[in-house]
Amino acid sequence: MLDHSYYVQQVQQAWLSLQQQQPLIQYITNSVAANYTANIVLACGASPALIDHPLEAAAFTQVAQALIINTGTPTLEQVQAMQLAAQAAQQHGRPWILDPVGYGSALAWRSSIVDQLLAFQPSIIRGNASEISTLAGNSGLAKGVDSTLNSADVYQHTLQLWQHTACIAISGESDFIVSREYNCVIQVKGGSAMQPKITAMGCALGALIAAYSAVTSPTLAAIAAHVHFAIAAQLAAAYATGIGQFNVAFLDELAQMNSEKIEQYMAIELFDLAHLNVCIHSSN
Amino acid sequence: MLDHSYYVQQVQQAWLSLQQQQPLIQYITNSVAANYTANIVLACGASPALIDHPLEAAAFTQVAQALIINTGTPTLEQVQAMQLAAQAAQQHGRPWILDPVGYGSALAWRSSIVDQLLAFQPSIIRGNASEISTLAGNSGLAKGVDSTLNSADVYQHTLQLWQHTACIAISGESDFIVSREYNCVIQVKGGSAMQPKITAMGCALGALIAAYSAVTSPTLAAIAAHVHFAIAAQLAAAYATGIGQFNVAFLDELAQMNSEKIEQYMAIELFDLAHLNVCIHSSN
Amino acid sequence: MLDHSYYVQQVQQAWLSLQQQQPLIQYITNSVAANYTANIVLACGASPALIDHPLEAAAFTQVAQALIINTGTPTLEQVQAMQLAAQAAQQHGRPWILDPVGYGSALAWRSSIVDQLLAFQPSIIRGNASEISTLAGNSGLAKGVDSTLNSADVYQHTLQLWQHTACIAISGESDFIVSREYNCVIQVKGGSAMQPKITAMGCALGALIAAYSAVTSPTLAAIAAHVHFAIAAQLAAAYATGIGQFNVAFLDELAQMNSEKIEQYMAIELFDLAHLNVCIHSSN
Repeated sequence: MLDHSYYVQQVQQAWLSLQQQQPLIQYITNSVAANYTANIVLACGASPALIDHPLEAAAFTQVAQALIINTGTPTLEQVQAMQLAAQAAQQHGRPWILDPVGYGSALAWRSSIVDQLLAFQPSIIRGNASEISTLAGNSGLAKGVDSTLNSADVYQHTLQLWQHTACIAISGESDFIVSREYNCVIQVKGGSAMQPKITAMGCALGALIAAYSAVTSPTLAAIAAHVHFAIAAQLAAAYATGIGQFNVAFLDELAQMNSEKIEQYMAIELFDLAHLNVCIHSSN
Repeated sequence: MLDHSYYVQQVQQAWLSLQQQQPLIQYITNSVAANYTANIVLACGASPALIDHPLEAAAFTQVAQALIINTGTPTLEQVQAMQLAAQAAQQHGRPWILDPVGYGSALAWRSSIVDQLLAFQPSIIRGNASEISTLAGNSGLAKGVDSTLNSADVYQHTLQLWQHTACIAISGESDFIVSREYNCVIQVKGGSAMQPKITAMGCALGALIAAYSAVTSPTLAAIAAHVHFAIAAQLAAAYATGIGQFNVAFLDELAQMNSEKIEQYMAIELFDLAHLNVCIHSSN
Repeated sequence: MLDHSYYVQQVQQAWLSLQQQQPLIQYITNSVAANYTANIVLACGASPALIDHPLEAAAFTQVAQALIINTGTPTLEQVQAMQLAAQAAQQHGRPWILDPVGYGSALAWRSSIVDQLLAFQPSIIRGNASEISTLAGNSGLAKGVDSTLNSADVYQHTLQLWQHTACIAISGESDFIVSREYNCVIQVKGGSAMQPKITAMGCALGALIAAYSAVTSPTLAAIAAHVHFAIAAQLAAAYATGIGQFNVAFLDELAQMNSEKIEQYMAIELFDLAHLNVCIHSSN
C-alpha cells in the first residue's frame, strides 16, 4: 500500500495543476448551492459554469473538462439536463461526479432519478453517510439532507455501488474516500465543526471534487478536494469566532492554499480495503 | 392579559427547544432567498430543507416538522408544490407559514395563488405591511416587494384575514404580531436600520418562524423568531459599520443567542386586541 | 468632445439621483446571481425585484423603472418572461439592459434567444469581451462565461450591434463603454483583480447599470455603474486581504459611496469614436 508521503505529493501536484489549468467545470446543482458552489470553485482555482437546461447541457459537457450533478431541488428541466449531460460525459470520456442529495425514502422521485443516473457510470459518487448507505440499498436513516449515521458505519454498506463507480467519497464528522483504484480507504481528518452550519458545504465540495477530477485521477481528485476543504476549514476556524466570520475566512483560506500548507496540515489515514473492519475500528 | 415576563420565559423556552430538537423545516421559497434562508435557519439551530417539486413536496411535508411557503419568484412547478405541501400540512397537522411575497395588484398571478393557499388555513401569515394590508382586501400601496405603509396603520386592516389564520406577523420598521390565540398585539422592538438593505431578510424570518412553530405555538413562534432577529440585528449593528460586515455579524449573533441575551435585550410591548387603536396610538 | 469634469459631475448627479429616487428595478437573471445581484443593487441605493414568470413579468415591467435581462441558466418559463418583459419595456419606454451571459457557439440555444431579444432594442448591451464580440458576429473564443479576449481588441468588432442599441458596455480587465449617443468610447479604470474571483460580479454590474438607467441616460448610466463598481472595488481591495473579506468590504464600499469619493477616485479615459484605433493603442 502506498504511504502518506505519496498522497501528500499527489495532492500538492493536483493543487498546482488546478491553479495552472483552471479547468472549466460544468455544474448542475440545486438553487441553494448555485452561488456558493461557484464562489468556492473560483476560490480554489477552477472556472465553474452552471449549465442546466436540456437544450444546451450536453453540448456544453463536451466543452467542459468535468461535470458535477447534484440532485437537490431538481426541476423537470434540470432532470432532463442531468440525464443528457451524464450521458454525454460517459460518451466523451469526461469525468463526472454524482452527488445524490436527499436520496432516501422520503424523496422517492429524486431517488429514482439518481438510480437512473447510475447507469452512466459516474467517476465518483459523493454524499453524506446516510445518502450513500441508502443508495447502496441499505435502510438509511435519512433526515432531510443531513447525515444521521457515522461514516465509519457506512463504508461497509457501499458494496452494492461498486458496479457503478470506482470511487466513493463520504463526508461527515469523518470523511472517507473508498477507492477501488487504490484498493484502499482514505480517511481525511481536519475540518471544523462549523462546516455543517453552512448550507451547501457538501454541494460545493462535490463541485471541487469535479474540478480536481479534471486534472488528476478520480481517487486523487476526491482526496485533494477533501484535503483542500479540511485544511482551509481548520485554518479558518482557528481565528473565526462565529459562523458568519467562519464562512468569510473559509473562502479566504481556500484561495490562499499552497504546497507548504498541504505538506504541513494534510492529515489522512490509510486503510487497506481488505482489512477495513479492523482498521476503522482501531482508528476510532 | 399576560405580562412581559411571561413572554420572555416563553421565548427562552422556545429558543432552548429549538436547540435541543433541531426540527426539520421544509421551505419553498424564491431563488433570491434559497441560500440565505438556509444559512439563517441553520445558524438559529434548526435543519432546513428546500423541497419544492410537486412530485415530492407533499410526501416530505409529512416528514418535516413545519413548512414555510414563500411566493417570491414562483415557477409553475413550485406553485403546484406549494398547493400540495400546504394541503398536506393541513391534513397532517403540520404548522405551516404563508409568506405572500409581492402580493398586490402589480403581480396578479401570484396574488391569485396566494388567495388559493389561504384555503389551507396557514398557522401564521407573515409579510410586510403592504402585503398583509392588500391581502386583507385593502388597497395597499405595494411598491415591488417593499413595504410602503407603516405597520401601525395596518393592523386594523387585517380583519378579513382572521377567517384563514389565528396569527398574523407584520414586519417593518416596527414589527407587530397579531394573535387571536392571545387576543393581543405584540410589538417587537430592536433590530437595525441595516436589515432592509439585506435582501431576503424577511423571507429568512418567515422560515425562522416556521422553525419555531415546530417547537411552540404559532403566536409564541412568531414572537420568538422576531425577537431572535431583533436582538441579533441590534447586537450586530453595534459593531458592524457597513452592510457587508453587518450581514456577517448578523449570522454570528443569530448563532450565539442564549437565554441571558433574551432576558437582557428582548423588548416587546403588549396591546389588548380590543383596545388596540388607543394603545397603538399611545405607543407611537 | 466633452471633458473629464463633465463626466464626473454627471456621475455624481446620477449617484445622488439614485439615492433620492431609489428606483424599482426588475431583474431577470440566473440562479447563481439572484441573491448577489439584489444585495448589490440594494447596497447601491435602488430597489430590486426579481420577477421572471411569463404570467406576470410584462405587467411588472410597466411598474418598474428599468429592466435587466441576463441569460445565464435560462429556463423555458424565464425565456418567455424575458421576451414579454423586453417587449413591454420597448412598448412603454422603459430602459432595459441586455446581458447575454454565455453567448457563443457552445451554448447555441441561449444564443438564439439573445438574437431574438435584440429585436426589442435594448438601451444598453453589456457583457464581457468574448460575449460582445461573438454577439456582433465575430468568432469569439468563449470559454464558458469568462472572457478570453482583451476588451481593447473587441470594441472595433461591435459594429454589427449598432442597429440594435446605442450603448455597449464591455467589462474585463479594462472596462469600455461605447456610446453612439456621445460618439465616444469611455474607458473606466480602477477595480480590483479580485473581482473576477467573485461569481456573478458582472451580472450584478448589469443590474446596477439598469438601476442607473432609471435616473439618467443610457451612456451615463453605464459609466456611473462601472465607476461605482471600480471605486468600491479599489477601496475594498486596499484593506481586504482575501476573497471572502473582499466581498464583504466591496458591499460595504458600494453602500458608502459619496460625491467626494467619486470626485477623488473616478478614473476614466475618453476616446473619440472616429479615432478609436489610434487612441486605444496609445492608451495601452
